[in-house]
Amino acid sequence: MTYELYYWDGLQGRGEFVRLALEEAGAEYIEVARGDEHDGLGTGAMMATMDSKSEPYPPFAPPFLKDGDLLIAQTANILLYLGPRHGLVPGVDSLRYVVNGLQLTIADMVTEAHDTHHPLASNLYYEDQKDAAKVRATDFIEHRIPKFMGYFERVMKQNPAGDAYLVSDALTYVDLSMFQLIDGLYYAFPRAMKTFPKRYPRLAALHDAVLERPRIAAYLESDRRIAHNESCVFRHYPELDKDTR
Amino acid sequence: MTYELYYWDGLQGRGEFVRLALEEAGAEYIEVARGDEHDGLGTGAMMATMDSKSEPYPPFAPPFLKDGDLLIAQTANILLYLGPRHGLVPGVDSLRYVVNGLQLTIADMVTEAHDTHHPLASNLYYEDQKDAAKVRATDFIEHRIPKFMGYFERVMKQNPAGDAYLVSDALTYVDLSMFQLIDGLYYAFPRAMKTFPKRYPRLAALHDAVLERPRIAAYLESDRRIAHNESCVFRHYPELDKDTR
Repeated sequence: MTYELYYWDGLQGRGEFVRLALEEAGAEYIEVARGDEHDGLGTGAMMATMDSKSEPYPPFAPPFLKDGDLLIAQTANILLYLGPRHGLVPGVDSLRYVVNGLQLTIADMVTEAHDTHHPLASNLYYEDQKDAAKVRATDFIEHRIPKFMGYFERVMKQNPAGDAYLVSDALTYVDLSMFQLIDGLYYAFPRAMKTFPKRYPRLAALHDAVLERPRIAAYLESDRRIAHNESCVFRHYPELDKDTR
Repeated sequence: MTYELYYWDGLQGRGEFVRLALEEAGAEYIEVARGDEHDGLGTGAMMATMDSKSEPYPPFAPPFLKDGDLLIAQTANILLYLGPRHGLVPGVDSLRYVVNGLQLTIADMVTEAHDTHHPLASNLYYEDQKDAAKVRATDFIEHRIPKFMGYFERVMKQNPAGDAYLVSDALTYVDLSMFQLIDGLYYAFPRAMKTFPKRYPRLAALHDAVLERPRIAAYLESDRRIAHNESCVFRHYPELDKDTR
């Protein structure tokens, strides 16, 4: 069965965490919003699903995934569903709660990364909240990146199965999400992230190892991968990056 | 087996979503941070677990739950674990993803409610970000509450099993969380929430129905329930509420 992934066209955003899992799994999927109107696809079709008055449990926002009749909303929830179906979770059941807990912590950091450029309101333009964004971005760089990344590095260090992955001794979907989070931060805050590999060597090694996985590498080269850009949660506004002093 | 719940003493916060599920289930649990140092409990014991260098998969932040050797972090993840063990999820497996998706959407709104009083940085005092907080709170009241609550009301309306609960025809943990979210908003923004029962009759009825459940009612009367206060995600700062005009 071909999955239907619903996410905004033109940006990585939260949809990218799902795409990476689908690509690593070699799963068949279509991107509904990127499809053609004449085929019943496109952004309009995505909005129609969200706004449907007959859908039993409509989603609040993209990304959401359809697998036959099942509609699953929320990034971490989609990954929770896909993980066991594609060998992207540990075999030990209890460790799946560890994976999900880490995934939700990544989600929290993604929200904070978004709020660096939109601290006052998603409804306002960045240009109308630049001063507040500078305060929030500075706090994010000085306090939040070290707090989150120091924690994730420690999880890898204390992983009883070795320090190559976050959980167990094999790749799980949360490793793919960690790659994406780090990659987004490299893009958004290149000056602040300069010392990242030195401060968080295990996380940096994980990021690079994911880059070299054959299916991920092929995906990143393909036209399915959208480049980082300023519509995403990770935006490169040089004035929000670490000041050069 | 007695659960160990780890959450900050003195506030409802995100721990309250877990407490409500444990109370409705009639489960045995202890509040580690509220315990006595002489019994190896207290906030110090909670911090020691978080900072442990030997814990295989340490948590990032409270709340977290211990069930024997298993340590589960993140509110929605804890509820995902407790739900099936205590009859707080639908019997149909696929609906559990619906419950989890809604729970994560509630979590997103809780984060936004928190950010109304801390839009710039959690590290700064509210008093040092009051102007930004007013902008964010105004946007929250005018745009975010209607968007989220309009959505949740629609989920109840479109629930194929009737409109008494969010999912299926029986109480699940996400209904308890919805009660807590609404209750927190009533406390934080009484003026803005004045029209809530009229605009969102199903949600208001759900809130009131949860209040009347015997175990919940007993809990809310007990000294285990901490009153709403200004250490929580839901804070009543009158100046952030809807302006009286």
